[in-house]
Amino acid sequence: MTRVGVNGYGTIGKRVADAVAAQPDMELVGVTKTSPDYGAEAAIRRGYDLYAAIDDRVDEFEAAGLTVSGTLANLLDAVDVIVDCAPSGIGERNQPVYEAHDTPAVYQGGEDADIADASFNARASGDEVVGADSLRVVSCNSTGLSRILAPLDEEFGVEKSRVTLVRRGGDPSETDRGPINDVIPDPTTIPSHHGPDVNEILPDIDIDTAALKAPMTAMHTHSVNVTLDTETSAEAVRDLLSEQSRVFQIPEQAGIDGAGTLKDYASDLGRPRGDIWENCVWEKSVSVEGRDLYLFQNVHQEADVVPENVDAIRTIATDVSRSESVARTNEVLGVGFDSLLADGGSVQAPMTADD
Amino acid sequence: MTRVGVNGYGTIGKRVADAVAAQPDMELVGVTKTSPDYGAEAAIRRGYDLYAAIDDRVDEFEAAGLTVSGTLANLLDAVDVIVDCAPSGIGERNQPVYEAHDTPAVYQGGEDADIADASFNARASGDEVVGADSLRVVSCNSTGLSRILAPLDEEFGVEKSRVTLVRRGGDPSETDRGPINDVIPDPTTIPSHHGPDVNEILPDIDIDTAALKAPMTAMHTHSVNVTLDTETSAEAVRDLLSEQSRVFQIPEQAGIDGAGTLKDYASDLGRPRGDIWENCVWEKSVSVEGRDLYLFQNVHQEADVVPENVDAIRTIATDVSRSESVARTNEVLGVGFDSLLADGGSVQAPMTADD
Repeated sequence: MTRVGVNGYGTIGKRVADAVAAQPDMELVGVTKTSPDYGAEAAIRRGYDLYAAIDDRVDEFEAAGLTVSGTLANLLDAVDVIVDCAPSGIGERNQPVYEAHDTPAVYQGGEDADIADASFNARASGDEVVGADSLRVVSCNSTGLSRILAPLDEEFGVEKSRVTLVRRGGDPSETDRGPINDVIPDPTTIPSHHGPDVNEILPDIDIDTAALKAPMTAMHTHSVNVTLDTETSAEAVRDLLSEQSRVFQIPEQAGIDGAGTLKDYASDLGRPRGDIWENCVWEKSVSVEGRDLYLFQNVHQEADVVPENVDAIRTIATDVSRSESVARTNEVLGVGFDSLLADGGSVQAPMTADD
Repeated sequence: MTRVGVNGYGTIGKRVADAVAAQPDMELVGVTKTSPDYGAEAAIRRGYDLYAAIDDRVDEFEAAGLTVSGTLANLLDAVDVIVDCAPSGIGERNQPVYEAHDTPAVYQGGEDADIADASFNARASGDEVVGADSLRVVSCNSTGLSRILAPLDEEFGVEKSRVTLVRRGGDPSETDRGPINDVIPDPTTIPSHHGPDVNEILPDIDIDTAALKAPMTAMHTHSVNVTLDTETSAEAVRDLLSEQSRVFQIPEQAGIDGAGTLKDYASDLGRPRGDIWENCVWEKSVSVEGRDLYLFQNVHQEADVVPENVDAIRTIATDVSRSESVARTNEVLGVGFDSLLADGGSVQAPMTADD
C-alpha cells in the first residue's frame, strides 16, 4: 500500500486526490489547502484529511469551522510519495521542503524540467523514469502530444511535427482569466515551450509548436501536422490510434461538434466532474496527404494528466511495470470510451441539446 | 409506483430521467430521442429503454447500432405520466398525441401557459394544481423567481418587484448559440415574459422583468429588487431565505465569486453533472434600504426545474401532498447545500483554483 499526500487541492490536486483514493493499492493520507475556502470544505466532505499548506494558517481554518489534521510537514512525514499540485512555480519553492523530509515527489508540468529526476508520460517515457526519486508529469498539452507522437513514431516514423495549440484562456473556475474577446499568440515567439517539453519525453522527435490562447474554458484544441517517414493512409492512422488506451476518437456520427458537446457526453456517461482523461481526436479530421498527417485533437486540461500522476506515483514507489500500472489505473478510473455507435451510423439531422 | 416516460432526452430530459429513475415511488419506463446521437447512446448505457420520438426513424437508430424499444406511441401507452422535454414549442405539437393516448403530461416552461391545466412551482403554486391532468413547470428563471417571491410575500408582503435577468446565451452543449461578444436586450420590450410567467404561479405579485442575453453558458444571473410592504433587515431576509429548502445562500467566506466557482463547488460535492437544483443567492448581496430589498441570485438553467418536474409528476399522479413530495424529492436527489464553513470564517487571501 503506497501512502500518498497531495499538496495543493486545486483543479489538478482535487482530481489526483480522487484518483489516488480510488486505487486499491494506494492510501490517500491527506491533502493540503492554503486557505479555508469551498474547496477545503469539499475535501472534508469527501472524507479527506485536510492539512494546512502554510504553517501559520491553521488558526484560519479553525476560525472558519474546518478541522485540520496538521501542517504540510506532518503530511510529508506520513507519506511515501507527495504529489505537488501547487500552482506553477510554487513546486520549485516546495522542493527543498520535500527533500528535507526525504519524501519522494511527483511534480506537475508547470515546473521546470530540471525539478525532477525525469519528466514523465506513461505511454511515451523511456526507461529513464525507472528508479527515479522524483518525477515531473508533463503539462496537459505535452501529455496529449506525447500520447500520439510516440505510437506514430513507432509505427510510421516521425520526420517532423508541427502543432498549433489553441489553448483555453482559463479553467471554468478561473473567473478572472482572459482573453475574453481575442485570440492571443502566447508566447509570440515560436516555438512555445510545448515542443521542448515533448522532447523531455521523446528526445528524438523533431517538433515545432505554436501556441495561442482563446476565450474558452472547457478544453485545449490542437491542430496537428506530422510529416511521417513513410506513406500511409488515414485508416491506418485511425487503427493505430484506436489501439491507444488513452486516446478517444470522436465518432463522426455521434453528433459531437465541439468541447461543449464533448464534455456533455462525458457527463452523460457519468464521468466524475465531466472529466475526460483521454486525448479526444476528431475521427473525421484524421487525413493523410502523401506523408503528411493532419488531425485535430482536444485535451481536457483539468483531467488528462490525472491518470499520468497515478502512474508516476507507482513508478516512484513500487516495482509495478508501467504497462501494468496503466492497465490498473485505466480499470479503476474507467479510462477509455467505447462508443456503442456503429461505424457508418447515420445521423442525418443536426442535433441540438434539446432535441 | 408511478410509471413515467420522458419525451425528449436533451438538457432537461436527461436530468429529469435521472431524477425520476432515482425516486423509489417512480419507475422510468423509457425516454425518447429523435436521432441516434451521443445522448441516445448515453441513455442506453444508463440502462434506460430508448424509444424513437419520430415513428419513421426507428431504422436510423438500428443502423447506428442502437436498439430501440418502440416509438413514442408505445411509450405513451405504457406510462401513467409523460414528461414533455421537447424543445420549446414542440410540446404544443405533442399535446394532441398525448391526449389521443389519454396520457397525463408535464410540460416545460418553453410552452405557452395555456398548454396545461395549470402552471407549477412546488413552493409557490396554489391549490389550482391539485387534481390537474396536465401541468406546466415554469421556466428556470420563473422557477427561481417564484421560489423567493413566495416567501417574501408571505413574510413581508411584496408591493412591487423589479428584476433584471442577465441570461446565459446558451447551454454548455449548445455550441452554436450567441451572443459571443455582446449583451443583448432580449426582448427589447419590457416586460420580458418572465414577469407574466411568475404571475401564472403568483397572480397577485406585482412584478416587472427586463431580460438580457450574455456571452456565458453556466448560469443565469438575476438582479432582484423587491419593494416590501413592511420595513425589515437584511438579516431577517437572510433568515427567511435560509428556511427555503431550494434556496442556497452562497457564504461570503467560501471563495465563490461567480458561476465558474459555484459550479466547481457543486462538482466538488459530487453533484451529478455539477448540477445545482437550488437558487443560489449571493449572501453578501442581500441588502435592505428602507422597504427596498436588493439581491443577486444565480439560477442553473439546466437543473433548477428538475426537482419541480418530479413534484409535478407526483401532483398529477398521486395523492402525496406537495410538502411531502418536496421533502421526498429533496431527500432522494440531495437538494440543499449545508455549508460547513462557519459564519464569519475568514478567507483573507484571494483564492485561485490551483492554490
